[in-house]
Amino acid sequence: MDVVQLLGANVRHHRKLKGMSQERLALDAGMERSYVSDLERGTRNPSVRALGRLADALGIEPKLLLESPVGGLSI
Amino acid sequence: MDVVQLLGANVRHHRKLKGMSQERLALDAGMERSYVSDLERGTRNPSVRALGRLADALGIEPKLLLESPVGGLSI
Repeated sequence: MDVVQLLGANVRHHRKLKGMSQERLALDAGMERSYVSDLERGTRNPSVRALGRLADALGIEPKLLLESPVGGLSI
Repeated sequence: MDVVQLLGANVRHHRKLKGMSQERLALDAGMERSYVSDLERGTRNPSVRALGRLADALGIEPKLLLESPVGGLSI
């Protein structure tokens, strides 16, 4: 899996684990909701700093957003 | 540590572990040497795709470039 698609899948995975909406995550990370939506679909290539903001908003370590899937990431 | 500085420290750490020069890493990752130099100093905020190219060039998983330091990263 491409690293940008991996990031998108992990953002969606952790967002759902926290029970957060895309709107909530976008607000907490200082992004547009449409940006979060694109990012989860793997059609955005954010900066590493943006990745860090997403991790902060999700309350997780940044490296978890680049974790390879173990047994699939979908909920 | 800021995520961009963390990335820089990890790139330097893994590059040295592999015995690679900045020139070699830059060439393998399709970047300018000065970009790699800036990145290791934490003064560049690359895209996640660029992070992926660096990990490929270093022969490691992308997530290792966002690993928090354990006992210091310097060699």
